[in-house]
Amino acid sequence: MDKIITSQPVSIKNVTVSDPFWSEYVELVRNTVLPYQWEALNDRIPDAEPSFAVKNFRIAAGLENGEFGGLVFQDSDVAKWLEAVGYSLQTHPDPKLEEIADGIIDIIEKAQQPDGYLDTYFILKDPGKKWTNLHECHELYVAGHMMEAAVAYYKATGKRKLLDVMCRFADNIDSVFGPEPEKIQGYDGHQEVELALVKLYEATGNERYLKLSKYFIDERGKEPNFFIKECEKRGWYSHWNRGQVPSPELEYNQAHKPVRQQEVAVGHAVRAVYMYTAMADLARETGDKSMLDACRCLWSNMVNRQMYITGGIGSTHHGEAFSFDYDLPNDTVYAESCASIGLIFFAHRMLQLEQLGEYGDVMERALYNTVLGAMSRDGRHFFYVNPLEVWPEASEKNPGKHHVKPVRQKWFGCACCPPNIARLLTSLNQYIYSYNKNTVYTHLYIGGEADIELEAGKIKLKQESRYPWNGRIKMTVVASTAGNTSLAFRIPGWCKNWSASINGKKADGIAKVENGYAVFTDSWKAGDEIELYMDMTIDIIQANPKVRANAGRVAIQRGPLVYCLEEADNGGILSAVSIDVNSQLSAETDDSLTQGAVVIKGKAFRTGGENWKDVLYKTYSDNEKEVDFKAVPYFMWGNRKPGEMLVWILRK
Amino acid sequence: MDKIITSQPVSIKNVTVSDPFWSEYVELVRNTVLPYQWEALNDRIPDAEPSFAVKNFRIAAGLENGEFGGLVFQDSDVAKWLEAVGYSLQTHPDPKLEEIADGIIDIIEKAQQPDGYLDTYFILKDPGKKWTNLHECHELYVAGHMMEAAVAYYKATGKRKLLDVMCRFADNIDSVFGPEPEKIQGYDGHQEVELALVKLYEATGNERYLKLSKYFIDERGKEPNFFIKECEKRGWYSHWNRGQVPSPELEYNQAHKPVRQQEVAVGHAVRAVYMYTAMADLARETGDKSMLDACRCLWSNMVNRQMYITGGIGSTHHGEAFSFDYDLPNDTVYAESCASIGLIFFAHRMLQLEQLGEYGDVMERALYNTVLGAMSRDGRHFFYVNPLEVWPEASEKNPGKHHVKPVRQKWFGCACCPPNIARLLTSLNQYIYSYNKNTVYTHLYIGGEADIELEAGKIKLKQESRYPWNGRIKMTVVASTAGNTSLAFRIPGWCKNWSASINGKKADGIAKVENGYAVFTDSWKAGDEIELYMDMTIDIIQANPKVRANAGRVAIQRGPLVYCLEEADNGGILSAVSIDVNSQLSAETDDSLTQGAVVIKGKAFRTGGENWKDVLYKTYSDNEKEVDFKAVPYFMWGNRKPGEMLVWILRK
Repeated sequence: MDKIITSQPVSIKNVTVSDPFWSEYVELVRNTVLPYQWEALNDRIPDAEPSFAVKNFRIAAGLENGEFGGLVFQDSDVAKWLEAVGYSLQTHPDPKLEEIADGIIDIIEKAQQPDGYLDTYFILKDPGKKWTNLHECHELYVAGHMMEAAVAYYKATGKRKLLDVMCRFADNIDSVFGPEPEKIQGYDGHQEVELALVKLYEATGNERYLKLSKYFIDERGKEPNFFIKECEKRGWYSHWNRGQVPSPELEYNQAHKPVRQQEVAVGHAVRAVYMYTAMADLARETGDKSMLDACRCLWSNMVNRQMYITGGIGSTHHGEAFSFDYDLPNDTVYAESCASIGLIFFAHRMLQLEQLGEYGDVMERALYNTVLGAMSRDGRHFFYVNPLEVWPEASEKNPGKHHVKPVRQKWFGCACCPPNIARLLTSLNQYIYSYNKNTVYTHLYIGGEADIELEAGKIKLKQESRYPWNGRIKMTVVASTAGNTSLAFRIPGWCKNWSASINGKKADGIAKVENGYAVFTDSWKAGDEIELYMDMTIDIIQANPKVRANAGRVAIQRGPLVYCLEEADNGGILSAVSIDVNSQLSAETDDSLTQGAVVIKGKAFRTGGENWKDVLYKTYSDNEKEVDFKAVPYFMWGNRKPGEMLVWILRK
Repeated sequence: MDKIITSQPVSIKNVTVSDPFWSEYVELVRNTVLPYQWEALNDRIPDAEPSFAVKNFRIAAGLENGEFGGLVFQDSDVAKWLEAVGYSLQTHPDPKLEEIADGIIDIIEKAQQPDGYLDTYFILKDPGKKWTNLHECHELYVAGHMMEAAVAYYKATGKRKLLDVMCRFADNIDSVFGPEPEKIQGYDGHQEVELALVKLYEATGNERYLKLSKYFIDERGKEPNFFIKECEKRGWYSHWNRGQVPSPELEYNQAHKPVRQQEVAVGHAVRAVYMYTAMADLARETGDKSMLDACRCLWSNMVNRQMYITGGIGSTHHGEAFSFDYDLPNDTVYAESCASIGLIFFAHRMLQLEQLGEYGDVMERALYNTVLGAMSRDGRHFFYVNPLEVWPEASEKNPGKHHVKPVRQKWFGCACCPPNIARLLTSLNQYIYSYNKNTVYTHLYIGGEADIELEAGKIKLKQESRYPWNGRIKMTVVASTAGNTSLAFRIPGWCKNWSASINGKKADGIAKVENGYAVFTDSWKAGDEIELYMDMTIDIIQANPKVRANAGRVAIQRGPLVYCLEEADNGGILSAVSIDVNSQLSAETDDSLTQGAVVIKGKAFRTGGENWKDVLYKTYSDNEKEVDFKAVPYFMWGNRKPGEMLVWILRK
C-alpha cells in the first residue's frame, strides 16, 4: 500500500522560535527546566522526592554499588530528559549540555547487556524475570522512550552512540517478540515502543522496526488475550500488588479488542493516546486505510465526548483513565499533563494524514491550556493533575480529591509529567508548520522563521504576532525560489470573523477556505507580507447538556485561552459567583501577571453569605449582589497565593 | 452528680402506631422485612450474597460443622434482627416469631464460652487472638448489639435467657477492661457497646455496666493512644489488609483526642453517632455537664455544617466518613442508612437532655427522607448509600461513584443497614412522645394511642393525622386522671404558620411557645380535642453558599419531605432542568405512587440538546424551553424504572 501523507512537518532544525510569548517558555525550559530536571534525576533537589534514575544506570553500568531505586519505569525519566536535550540542541547548540548528555549516554551504553537488553530495573533487581510481566512492568515502554531520545540526540548531534545502543536493543526485542512460535506473541502494558519504533525506522531506514511496531499494534487485543495468558503463566502474581490478583482489566491497557475495532477511548489516557499516535503513524507509513478509519473514530469520540475544554483528557484518577462519554467532572478530574501531551502527538500525526483544522484546534487547546498550565512560571513546579475546579480544603480533607493538588509540586515519585513537558516545549518548532508539494500549512501562531524545501524550490518565512493575546498575525516571505506557492493558515474554531491583507492591501475574498485553512496562493517574492486579522472576542462557552457537571455553567474563552476565576482576584467561595451572559465583559492587559497578559473583567453576582451564620438550609430568598470579577488565563492559575479556582462559572 | 433529665420517652409498650402512612411500613417490617431478613441470615435468599450469620452461631454451638463465614462482625446482624424482633413483640405478640427467636437464643447460649465470651469469629477462627485487635475486630461492637437485643427481647417477653447470657458477657468484659493494671486500658474500634451498656444498666439496675460504659468513653482518645499501642503490640498487623500497616488514623475511630475535647464530627459516621449517643446517655445518667457541652458542640457541627438536607451524614465513601464543614457533594456522597439511624438515636437522647425542637426536627428529617428511602416499597431491597444525585451510567462507569447504586440491593456482604432499618421501624413508637412531670411532649406526628403515667396521674392520648402529606394534627384526650396537664407539640422548623383549635374553637394565642414547642395547658377531660393546623406549603430551599455543591441550586421541600426529580417523570439529563423560584408550583395527590402521596408539579426550563449533535462546547446561546416538571418525595425514589435522580435542581 502507498503511504498516506497529506503533509509533513518541517523539521525542528529548520524552524526557529522567536516570539514574545513563547520565547520565554522555551528559554525557561532550556535555562531552568532542563538543568533543574538533571538535578532531580541525580537526587540533588532538597525536599523533593528522590528520583534514583541516574543512580540506577550508574549501578547497572558497574560504576557504583547500591540497589535499584524508584519505580519499575524509572529509566524513562532519563530518556525523556535526553530526548528534550536532543531537541534543544537541534536549535540551540550548547557544548556543556551536550557533554553532560554524552556522559550519561556513555553510562547507558555500559549498562546495556551483551544481548542488547537495557532496563535497569530488571538488570539490577530481577534478572530472571525479564519479559515475564509485560502487562505491568513497562520494559518496552522504557525502551520506547530511550529510542525517542536516541533519535532526537542523533538528529541534534549526528552522534550515533545512543542510536546504536537502541538499535541493538530493538534488534534484541525483535528477536524476542513476533509471530514465530519460539517468540513471545505479546506487547507492552504501556504503549510507547510502537510510536518509537516508527521514529527509529525513519531515522535508520530499517524496515524491521516499522514491521515490529506494526506487529505490536496488530497483535494487541487479539483472542486469546496475551495479558490473561501471561498473568496465568505468572500464577496471577502482580508486581504492583505484591500478591495474586484477579484477571487483568483489559480496557485499562486498550487490550480488550483489536485496535481496529476500538471505537471509544477507554482506559489509561496516556496509554491510549500513545497508542493512537502509533496507529496514525502506521496508517501513514503503511497506507492502511482501516487503521486511519479507527484513528478518526477514536479521535472523534475522545475530542467530541471526553475532552475537557482545557484540552485535558481522563475523567477519573482511578486508573488515570477515561470514564465514559460526557462524564467530565471538574473537581474529581484527572486530566494528566502527559495525556494532553499525548493528545498533541496524536493531533500532530492526524494532521499529516488529513489536513483538517480541527486537529490544529485541539493541538492548540491542549497546548495553551493544560500543557502550559502544568508548569509553574518558575519552571520548577509541575501539575500532574490539571483540575478545572479547586477547593484547597477539599483536596486536603476529602479523600476523593486528594489527587487534585492546589499547588504545583516540585517533583513526583512517578515523575513522568515534568520531563514530558520539557520534551514537548523543546520540540515545539515541529508543530508549527507542515508542507506538501508547494503548500505550506501554518498550524500554530508562534513567531520565528522557517526554511522549507518545497517541490518547486525553497521558501523562507517569518512569522510575527502577539498571539495568544492578539489575533493579528504577520507572515513575511523572507526569500523564495519556489514560484507559485500556497500559504495556508489555520483559522481556529474559536474565530468567528477574520480578514486579511497582502502587502498592506485588503485581501478579502482572495483566500480559498478549505477544511479550516485559509489558503493564499501567489508567486511570492521576498518582502511580501500577508497579514491575518482574527477577531479575538470574549466568548462565553456552554457545554453540551449531556455534560452534567457543567449544567447551568459557562466558561470564558478568548482566542485559544480558557479563563478561570481565582480566589486571589475574586475572594473565596467562587461557586457563589454567577455571570450574566449578556453583560459587557472587557479584555484588559495586566502586566502584573506576565508581560502583555490579557485578563477579562466584568460585573458578576455573588450570593451573599452574611446572614447565614451557622445555618445550613433555609427558604430561598434573593440575596445576590453585584460584584466585579476578574478572570485570568487558565494556564496561569496557581501562580499566586494558593486558593480556589474555577473554570465553569454559574450562569446568572 | 444528679441526673440531667428534662423528659423521658414513653416506652414502646405504651404506644401504639395506627397511622395511614406509618402502619403500612410497620406492617411491612413485621410481615415482610423480619421474615425476609431471617431467610437472609440463614442464607436462603436466591441470588443474594450469603450471610453465614446463623450458621456461624450453629457451628460455634457445636450443632453443625463448618468454618466461620462472613465478616468479623457478622454476629451483629443476628443481634440487630433479634433486637427488632424484641421491639415488634412488645406491641405485636407473635408466638411463631417468638419461637424462632427462642430457637436462635438457645443456640447463642450454647455458643457462649464458659467464661462468658461470645463472638463466633474468634471462637471459631482465631481463639488465640481474642482482645488483641480491638481497633479493627469489633468484639465489643458485636457484644453491644447483642446486649441491645437482649434488653429488647427481655422487655418484650420477660424471658431472661439472652439477658443473662449478655450479663455474663458484660461481666467478662468488665473483668478484661478497666483502669486496673492487669486489665486492658482500651476500648473498641467501633463504638456501640458504650450505649448498649447503658441499656443493660437500665434493664438490670447493675451500676457496674454504667461504670464500664463511662470507662470506655472516658478512656477514648487519651494519650498515649491505645490503638497505636495495640497496633504496635501486634507488630502493626492489620486484619483487613492481611499485612503490616502504618499507624492507625485515629480520627476514623474518633480516638484522636478525649471525647470532651472533640468539637468537630470526624471519621466514620456510624461510629461517630453511636459514640455521641452514648455520650448523651452518660451525660444524662451521670449528670455530667462537660459531657453535655461536648454533645451540644458535636451536634451543632454535624447538623449545621455536615448534614445533607435529607438527614444523611458522611460525605465520602473513603472510610464511610465525614469529610469537613460544608463539603456535601451530592453525587459522590455516602450518607449511609445506618448513620442516619444513629443520628436519630443521638437526637432522641438529646431530647431527653434538653427540650429543643431542633432535635425533633433533625430526627424527623432523617426519618422521613434517608431512613424511609433506604428501604424499597417491597421491604426486600435496601440502599446502603443514599445519594442526592444519581446518574446510573456514572455509577457503573466512573469508579469514584461505584458505591452509589441507582437501585436498592437485595442484601449486602456487609449487611448492617437492613436490620438497622428494621430495628428502628419496629421501635418507632418510642420516638413519638416523651414526658416530664405533668407535660407530654409530642415530637413526631404519627397516629396511634399512648398511655402515659404523669406525676399527677395517667393520661391516654390518641393522635390522628395524614402527616406527612398534610399538616393537620388531631390529638384527642381519651382519658385522664392527671388534672392540670401540659400538652406540648413540636412546631417543625419547616412550619412558618400554624394555628390551633380546642374542641373546635379557635385557640390562637393560647399556647405558650417554648423552644420550638407549642404548649397547651389545661385540666384535660376525656373527649377534649386539640387540633393543630400547620401550613404545609411548598418550600424552595437554598443551601448555605459555603456548600459549593449546591451553588445555583435549590431543593423542594414540603413539610418534612424533601423532593426530587426522577427520570421516570421528567426524562433523562435532569441537570438540564432549571426551575424559576418565583413560578407557581402545585402540590397534587398522586395515588399511583402510594395512597395519598403528594407530588409537586410546575413549569420548568430545559436546556435543549437538539442542535448539539456531536459537539462538546460552543458559544452560549439561549436554548431553553419551558417544560412541565414533577417532583416526587425523595424517600420514594428508585421504586420505578431505574434512572437519573436529582434533589438539588438548577435555579433559573
